[in-house]
Amino acid sequence: MQLGIVGLGKMGGNMRTRLRNAGHEVIGYDRDPNLSDVDSLEALVKGLEGPRAVWIMVPSGDATRDTVHALGELLSEGDILIDGGNSRFTDDLVHAEHLAPKGIGYVDAGVSGGVWGLENGYALMVGGSDEDVSRLMPIFEALKPEGEYGFVHAGGVGAGHYAKMVHNGIEYGMMHAYAEGYELLAASEHVTDVPAVIKSWREGTVIRSWLLDLLDNALREDPELADITGYSSDSGEGRWTVEEAIRLAVPLHVISASLFARFESRQDDSPAMKAVSALRNQFGGHAVQSKK
Amino acid sequence: MQLGIVGLGKMGGNMRTRLRNAGHEVIGYDRDPNLSDVDSLEALVKGLEGPRAVWIMVPSGDATRDTVHALGELLSEGDILIDGGNSRFTDDLVHAEHLAPKGIGYVDAGVSGGVWGLENGYALMVGGSDEDVSRLMPIFEALKPEGEYGFVHAGGVGAGHYAKMVHNGIEYGMMHAYAEGYELLAASEHVTDVPAVIKSWREGTVIRSWLLDLLDNALREDPELADITGYSSDSGEGRWTVEEAIRLAVPLHVISASLFARFESRQDDSPAMKAVSALRNQFGGHAVQSKK
Amino acid sequence: MQLGIVGLGKMGGNMRTRLRNAGHEVIGYDRDPNLSDVDSLEALVKGLEGPRAVWIMVPSGDATRDTVHALGELLSEGDILIDGGNSRFTDDLVHAEHLAPKGIGYVDAGVSGGVWGLENGYALMVGGSDEDVSRLMPIFEALKPEGEYGFVHAGGVGAGHYAKMVHNGIEYGMMHAYAEGYELLAASEHVTDVPAVIKSWREGTVIRSWLLDLLDNALREDPELADITGYSSDSGEGRWTVEEAIRLAVPLHVISASLFARFESRQDDSPAMKAVSALRNQFGGHAVQSKK
Amino acid sequence: MQLGIVGLGKMGGNMRTRLRNAGHEVIGYDRDPNLSDVDSLEALVKGLEGPRAVWIMVPSGDATRDTVHALGELLSEGDILIDGGNSRFTDDLVHAEHLAPKGIGYVDAGVSGGVWGLENGYALMVGGSDEDVSRLMPIFEALKPEGEYGFVHAGGVGAGHYAKMVHNGIEYGMMHAYAEGYELLAASEHVTDVPAVIKSWREGTVIRSWLLDLLDNALREDPELADITGYSSDSGEGRWTVEEAIRLAVPLHVISASLFARFESRQDDSPAMKAVSALRNQFGGHAVQSKK
Repeated sequence: MQLGIVGLGKMGGNMRTRLRNAGHEVIGYDRDPNLSDVDSLEALVKGLEGPRAVWIMVPSGDATRDTVHALGELLSEGDILIDGGNSRFTDDLVHAEHLAPKGIGYVDAGVSGGVWGLENGYALMVGGSDEDVSRLMPIFEALKPEGEYGFVHAGGVGAGHYAKMVHNGIEYGMMHAYAEGYELLAASEHVTDVPAVIKSWREGTVIRSWLLDLLDNALREDPELADITGYSSDSGEGRWTVEEAIRLAVPLHVISASLFARFESRQDDSPAMKAVSALRNQFGGHAVQSKK
Repeated sequence: MQLGIVGLGKMGGNMRTRLRNAGHEVIGYDRDPNLSDVDSLEALVKGLEGPRAVWIMVPSGDATRDTVHALGELLSEGDILIDGGNSRFTDDLVHAEHLAPKGIGYVDAGVSGGVWGLENGYALMVGGSDEDVSRLMPIFEALKPEGEYGFVHAGGVGAGHYAKMVHNGIEYGMMHAYAEGYELLAASEHVTDVPAVIKSWREGTVIRSWLLDLLDNALREDPELADITGYSSDSGEGRWTVEEAIRLAVPLHVISASLFARFESRQDDSPAMKAVSALRNQFGGHAVQSKK
Repeated sequence: MQLGIVGLGKMGGNMRTRLRNAGHEVIGYDRDPNLSDVDSLEALVKGLEGPRAVWIMVPSGDATRDTVHALGELLSEGDILIDGGNSRFTDDLVHAEHLAPKGIGYVDAGVSGGVWGLENGYALMVGGSDEDVSRLMPIFEALKPEGEYGFVHAGGVGAGHYAKMVHNGIEYGMMHAYAEGYELLAASEHVTDVPAVIKSWREGTVIRSWLLDLLDNALREDPELADITGYSSDSGEGRWTVEEAIRLAVPLHVISASLFARFESRQDDSPAMKAVSALRNQFGGHAVQSKK
Repeated sequence: MQLGIVGLGKMGGNMRTRLRNAGHEVIGYDRDPNLSDVDSLEALVKGLEGPRAVWIMVPSGDATRDTVHALGELLSEGDILIDGGNSRFTDDLVHAEHLAPKGIGYVDAGVSGGVWGLENGYALMVGGSDEDVSRLMPIFEALKPEGEYGFVHAGGVGAGHYAKMVHNGIEYGMMHAYAEGYELLAASEHVTDVPAVIKSWREGTVIRSWLLDLLDNALREDPELADITGYSSDSGEGRWTVEEAIRLAVPLHVISASLFARFESRQDDSPAMKAVSALRNQFGGHAVQSKK
């Protein structure tokens, strides 16, 4: 079927390729003319026969909202707009409400797969009406990995990004569990070959996983992670996961600790620990590192 | 080659089968005569030609220590004793020192694989001298999964159980990361089919893993986990992991939180939260649930 | 000076009393005619000479917003409205913006003190313009405890509730630190008189505090906290504190753990731990408590 | 009464002074002849009339054990030895058992008060037999603060250090709760005078405490904590508290997080976060800070 894609960065561009490989007709638009198939959003919309489907793959927040609004002016009743970016699920509710009076359908799609998705397929978590999701199934089928997994219609509008948000929250926790284990192995005088231990875990263990495979890859390239710093950004979904946990009164010790560790990785010195040092200095006797 | 196995429970019995299937000659001893090949430890030792190798697969702590001591009296110089149970790595150091004056070698083996190991192989993490480990390689080769993973000689005596301990610590953290994500999905009004979301994650996602496959299996059998309680024991390795982190000054937020969650799962009411309630009651105005 | 108070519950009523004891003229309005000095908001506003000051002391959220809006219709240019309730600081920004076009000033006041405040004074954290805060100083002076502490002009509009929010976040963490210590003492076979230990800490220790005094009081009345449950609600400020930490990328391990403990106290069984049990059941061998 | 004190550092020396001010006869021994009243342990023991009481105030671990052993050779049946240092409670059990065959009593005393103790008194938590503790009450009375608080006979041998250990664990948690609140205030654009907020909390609030007074003092000297680093050691008791929690299956989220924060404060870069960065780098697209 026909699909428009807005945003042809690493993800959007690879998705266009995968869809074309599957025989779909894709018109892509990007602000960068070197990536774009057409000159404008208008041209993209005109190039598609109705009822149209347009997939947005731009940064979440302002850029996505602006694109939704711009396409809302160009699309017609019966068209469907899909947000495949990393939007907060609450944005989906706003966008769907914005488009509904025009008769434009809205589907949100959480997409996982990174640079490996072009070849292996993208895991898709989608939210929207049964009707809209059904119409888009050929696209989803082409994007998803082969087999019975890798796609879910998780619920109404917002449910796709919600599921992706929780996926990323779990990812934070899993990564930090491995990371703590790595640090402990590296600190121990008993284990003499840490990368070999990690590598051995790839088969037969309870903790085997794709992330563990990646950790093995990373240690093969840099066995002591000497060329990398711990400085780590966070992408939104981790924060939203903890915010949702607070809203729903769900205890989230592990995922929140993983999020806080990212915050800490970006601090030169911890203001909290400066306060602890100051207190210990006050009640005396404790050697405190002073800058004086 | 020949191997004696002491302890023919679920793990030891299956390992005997897997080794025999690979063509090794195994003599097993268990206190339960229905499981045992011989009548006594003495008979097991006599049945093996020197230099012997005897694999202990009994509960950690007293049972393992008593078995090490008993075999220490029966084995001869040049024999090797392997502890494949869930022992603390510090016990290995004591056991090796106990056997060294008699010229008996000692190797510790952390074993992962559970009920699936018979068919798929057991991941093995071993500690000991190069010489002892080399002599036992035919056994390790038969027990481990096929392929390049699933076996590591992690260091000297104790390193095998150390690596297994960290493996289990990571397992605690990973399981709890999934568990928190599950709870959040289940609490949300947005996601209407939680088991379908979990199932979809098995391919194409960052968080795909064997544990996730198991979670899908569990939810297929019981979509709301209605027939299971949260009461969960802990097996030693989780506690030892946190103790090691304390010894080595390694921050372990995620794994310790996962361990504490198990403690909490066994409490009817939290004494700490009773103290919080009592405090809130004192400074007034807060409705406190009283048993009166 | 004159002050109107809207909301004469435990807090508002006691504040009226304390202000009157200090010689101020207070007109109070409450929906409950038994508590109220006047019949209506209109009557309250008419009873005050301009420029007026009216202090709102009603539940945060809808009730406060509705009261701000109602008073916004009744008050005149040059009047000041004070929100002394437990509002989120973000509400203050909205309320101030709502009143500004009418020339009505807005001050937010975080109030601490509970049932002890009538006698000992209320700690006040206020936000607003220098001019508005200066005009209200006689009221603040009468409400605050004697001495140099217990009052701060923390910044512009919202800063008062912000400071109170952080105060309550710290309160969560402190209470849980004591609570964990209490639980550990109670679990130990070494300490035979837990209440006596807590009591002794009230002088000469690093951890002496008003909260510790309250814990001693509580244990005097109920040495094993036998008549109280751990079920504990949470009042908003704890959640807002963690939300702010997420917004500002501040690691907040202690306060978030204290908040999550309250969530847990209200769960009969932990869905997360049910998932952990289900996983352990799958990979086998672990005894799992089944409801079957 | 008479008392020998071994170890005249900051704590031991001040305690000697406080006891002498109360009219007790104290003979002090220290390896530093400038501090010592006598030349040797032998001279100290000879200078006391039987039945003697000797208070050890030296570093925990080897130094305390060696002193206990040395005094065990010099003291006689009916004498009492008190360990007032920061020993682990498990050491007390060993020491008491070592001295029992000689008829020498043993009492452990956890001491709090720091540099303020000389003037205000030291909080004492003691463990030992009723008989031994009774005989030492005149010493305890002189050391403790005035009033009904500041002293507890917490249980048998070890209970004193146990109570002190938990005291210090709580101290870790409280300090970190304040520290997190401080960091959040400092990060906020809403609160413009952080030290003034902290100062105001000293009266009328739920979180007023001696530690808060100290934080106010520290911020008065250095309002932005500009001259201090977050680097913070940990003294043993925090680690022991978490170890005990693990032994007794007590969840200890807050205190363990506070301990881990100290570990983190001493790391230049987090090995765990390097592993997280390496993983994110592997699955692609995330900007990772490389040292290359």
